[in-house]
Amino acid sequence: MIRSCLLLTASLIALAPPALAQQPAPNPPAGPTTGTRPRPTPLPGAVDPKVAALRDKALADDTAYELVEALTTEIGPRPTGGSARQAAARDWSVARLKAMGFKNVRIEPYTLQNVWERGAETAEIVGPNAQPLRLAALGNSGATPAAGLTAPVVYFASLNDLLLAPEGSLRGKIAFVSNSMQPTQDGSSYGSAGAARFVGPNVAAKKGAAAIVIRSIGTDHGRGPHAGGTNFDAGVAPIPAAALSVADAENLERLMKAGRPVQMKLVLTPRFVGARPSGNVVAEVPGSDKDAGIVLIGGHLDSWDLGTGAIDDGAWIAITAAAAKLVMDAGRPRRTIRVVWFGDEEIGGLGGEAYAKAHAGERHATASESDFGADRVWRVETNFAAPAKAIGDRLAVALQPLGIVRGTGTAGDGTDIAPIVRTGVAGVDLNQSGLRYFDYHHTPEDTLDRIDPVQLKQNVAAWTTMLQVVANAPEEIGAVAPRP
Amino acid sequence: MIRSCLLLTASLIALAPPALAQQPAPNPPAGPTTGTRPRPTPLPGAVDPKVAALRDKALADDTAYELVEALTTEIGPRPTGGSARQAAARDWSVARLKAMGFKNVRIEPYTLQNVWERGAETAEIVGPNAQPLRLAALGNSGATPAAGLTAPVVYFASLNDLLLAPEGSLRGKIAFVSNSMQPTQDGSSYGSAGAARFVGPNVAAKKGAAAIVIRSIGTDHGRGPHAGGTNFDAGVAPIPAAALSVADAENLERLMKAGRPVQMKLVLTPRFVGARPSGNVVAEVPGSDKDAGIVLIGGHLDSWDLGTGAIDDGAWIAITAAAAKLVMDAGRPRRTIRVVWFGDEEIGGLGGEAYAKAHAGERHATASESDFGADRVWRVETNFAAPAKAIGDRLAVALQPLGIVRGTGTAGDGTDIAPIVRTGVAGVDLNQSGLRYFDYHHTPEDTLDRIDPVQLKQNVAAWTTMLQVVANAPEEIGAVAPRP
Repeated sequence: MIRSCLLLTASLIALAPPALAQQPAPNPPAGPTTGTRPRPTPLPGAVDPKVAALRDKALADDTAYELVEALTTEIGPRPTGGSARQAAARDWSVARLKAMGFKNVRIEPYTLQNVWERGAETAEIVGPNAQPLRLAALGNSGATPAAGLTAPVVYFASLNDLLLAPEGSLRGKIAFVSNSMQPTQDGSSYGSAGAARFVGPNVAAKKGAAAIVIRSIGTDHGRGPHAGGTNFDAGVAPIPAAALSVADAENLERLMKAGRPVQMKLVLTPRFVGARPSGNVVAEVPGSDKDAGIVLIGGHLDSWDLGTGAIDDGAWIAITAAAAKLVMDAGRPRRTIRVVWFGDEEIGGLGGEAYAKAHAGERHATASESDFGADRVWRVETNFAAPAKAIGDRLAVALQPLGIVRGTGTAGDGTDIAPIVRTGVAGVDLNQSGLRYFDYHHTPEDTLDRIDPVQLKQNVAAWTTMLQVVANAPEEIGAVAPRP
Repeated sequence: MIRSCLLLTASLIALAPPALAQQPAPNPPAGPTTGTRPRPTPLPGAVDPKVAALRDKALADDTAYELVEALTTEIGPRPTGGSARQAAARDWSVARLKAMGFKNVRIEPYTLQNVWERGAETAEIVGPNAQPLRLAALGNSGATPAAGLTAPVVYFASLNDLLLAPEGSLRGKIAFVSNSMQPTQDGSSYGSAGAARFVGPNVAAKKGAAAIVIRSIGTDHGRGPHAGGTNFDAGVAPIPAAALSVADAENLERLMKAGRPVQMKLVLTPRFVGARPSGNVVAEVPGSDKDAGIVLIGGHLDSWDLGTGAIDDGAWIAITAAAAKLVMDAGRPRRTIRVVWFGDEEIGGLGGEAYAKAHAGERHATASESDFGADRVWRVETNFAAPAKAIGDRLAVALQPLGIVRGTGTAGDGTDIAPIVRTGVAGVDLNQSGLRYFDYHHTPEDTLDRIDPVQLKQNVAAWTTMLQVVANAPEEIGAVAPRP
C-alpha cells in the first residue's frame, strides 16, 4: 500500500506550482482533536521530487536486510568491552563499507581502561522449593566466591521500596527487586522500570546487601534474562548483581508471597580484566561544501553477548549504511555525511566519548542516532535553531507519507552522540516504535528473525529522506542550546 | 498478576519508616538508557497505605463495566447536537448518579444555536467501474441536491497536496483526500492525519470544489466509515463533505491509479435545524474544605450516532463515576470532587464552553478529562505550580505499580475542560493507550465489546488513585500559566 501511494504522491507533487510552496497551514479546530495530544501539523508545501523519488526507491531496497543478515550470521555476538569478536566486526565493517563505495573508511582506535567480563552464572532456590533460576550478571557486577553465595532473599516490589529499606537491614541478604515493565511506543517505560537496574545494585550495596537480583527489564514473559549495565558510585564496592528472566522472577515472587522464607544460592564470577584496545568505524560520503558542517549518523557495533545483536544495534548499523549509500548514489550532497559505528556503547558509551574527543575541532551540523530496533519509525523530532527551522518543516512533510508524525521538538537522543550533542549540535531523531523492542532487548532472543523486513525498509526510507533533505539543505545549520 | 503484586506492595510500604520518605532519587547513568527518552523517575518515598489499598480495591471493582454496559444497552447512541437520545441519557445519568449516592446531582441546561443533523448519505462510482461506496457525512457538511451530485473525482494523497492545488482548479469537481493513519500510543497521529478532516473541507470549498470526500481518519481497514466534525471559515459556504470507509477509500485509490477518470454520484442531505436545548450532568462528592478548590473530572455524554458510544466516551463516563464512588465511600475528601458529564463535545465542545461560563466564579484546583477509550493508562502528566509539585511526585509513585510512566509535564488535555484550563487551572492527565482506539472511533463498531474489562479496571484504579491523592493533598493547589 505505502509504496504505490508514495509513487503517486511524488508524481502529483511534481505537477504542483512552486508559487504555493509557502502557503501557511490553517489551524485545526479545537473540537475534533479531543483526547489526543495534537502536534503541529506540517503543511509547508511541495516535497522536492528528488527527495520523494529517493524515499520511494528506498522502500524497495534490500541492502539493509542483507547487511544485518551478514553481520549477525558471519560475526554474531560482538561483546561489548573490546572483545575479539568486536574487533572482527570492525574489520568486517571496513571491508563492507569500502566495497559499498564509501570514502575515508577507517578504524579510529581508543583504549578501554578496565573491562568487565562475564564469568559463570547460575542460581537456584534452595530448600523445600529447590529449583534452578535463569539469570544473567549485570555489567559491572561484583563476583560471588567461586563456590557461590547462599543467603536469604528479601523482596521489594520496586526500586522505590528498596530505597525505603532501613540502612543495614540487608546485611548478609540478597535483595530482590521485581518491578514489571509495560511496553511503550516511545520507550519511556524503560526509563522508569529500568531504574531498578541502573541504580538498584548501587542502592543495595550501600544498604549492605550481599547481592542483588532484579526482575529483567523487559516486556516479555520468557526464560531469557535481559543483560545490561549498571553502575556503582566511586567508593562503593560492586556487589554481585544479576537479572532473573521475567518468568523466573514471577515464579520467585509467587514463592515469596506464600510467606515462607526463601534462600538463594548465587554463583557469579565476572571479573575486571584491565585495559583493552577497541575502536570506532568511520565512513564518509564527502560533501561539496566543506564549511557546511558534517551530518553525523551513528549506531553501535558492539552488542550484548547473549544474542546476536540483531535489533541492538545490528539493524541500525545496516540502516545507516543503506540510507547513506542511496544518497551517495544519487549525487554528491552539499554536506559530508559521516557514518560512525561506535564501539562499546553497552558498557557506558565509551566509543561515543572517544569520538567526541577525537573530533572536537570539527563542525557538526547535525547528529542522529538510532538504537531502538527495526520496527517502523513513527515520529520525527528536530531542534534546529531558528534560521534552519524550515529544514524540519520540509523533512516532516517528506516523511508524512511514511506514516511518521511530527513531535514536539526534543531531539538529540542517543548515548553515542550524547557527548557531541552536549556541545550544541542540533539533533534529528527518527523514533522507532518500542512496543516490541523490550521483548528481546539484551536477551538470547535478539536474533535476525526479530527483524521485520518490511518495517526495516520503512526505516531505510525514513533515514534516506532525512539524509537527502538535511545534507542538501541550503540553510546554515548552527549551534543550538545544549540539552541539560 | 498486577493485583497480587499491588497487595504485597501495599503491605511492604506500610512497614517502611516515614523518616526515609524524602530520600532523594539517584541519577541513572547515561549509558544504559540509550535509544529511549528517559523521563524523570519518581522515587520520593512511601505510598500512603490508604491510597494503595483503594487502588488495589479498584482493580477488583465491577462498577464501571456495569455502568457502560447499561448506558450502551439501555440508551445506545446519544447523538451530539442536543438530540432526544442525549436528553434521555441525561435523565438516565441523574437517576444513576443519585442512586450511587452522589450529592448535588443536577442537569445544567444550555442552548445550542444552530444544530447540524445527518440526512441521507449514499455514494457510488458511476461508469465502467460502477459500485457503491460506504461513507458518512462529516459534522457541519453542506448538502447535495436531494437527487444527488455527479462529478469527476480529483485525487490528493494528503491535505498538503490539496493545499497545493491551484485556486479554482477544483470547480465542479469532487476532491478526494486520502492520507492514511498509523496507530500511535499517544494519539499524535490523529492530529496529523486528522487535519484532512478538520480543515480539508474548508480548503476544498475555498478552491471551488463541488464536494469533498476523505479517507476515514482511522487505523482500521474496515467498511465502517469514521464520522467526525469539520469546520468552515465564516463566509465560506459549507460544501458536501464525507468520510469514505478505509476499505472504500483504498478501492477508489486503486481505481484512480489505473489512470481512468472516475465519476462519483454523491447524495448527502444533512441540514441545520436551528436552536435546541441541551445540558451537562453534574454530580459531587462534597469536600471538607470549601476553600481548597474543586477537583474536576469530566467526560462527554454525547456520542456520534453510528455506534453506541462505548469507547467514545461511555467508558470514561463509567470510569469517572466508579472512581469517584470508591473515593466517596472511603471517607470525605478534603476537596470537593465534581464529576461532569458534558453534552455536545463531538460538534465542538459546546458543553464545556457552557460549563466554563456557568462556573467562572468558582475556584478549580485541577481539571482532568479522558476521552480516549478504555485501554490501559500508560502515562501520567501533571503541571502543578511549584508549591504543589510534590503532589505530582506522590501520584507518580502511587501509579507506578499499575505500569504507568511519568510524562514530561504537559497536562490539561481535553476539549471539554479546555475552557476551564485556559483560565489557569492545573491539569492532571492519565493517558490511555491509543493503539486500538482509532480502529473504532466514530464508527458503527464503537460498541461495548471493544472494551476490555481488565484494562477498564486498570483505568478505574488509576483514576481512583488520582482522586484520592489530589483531593486529599495538604498542599495548596494554585493557578498555573495557561497553555497557549
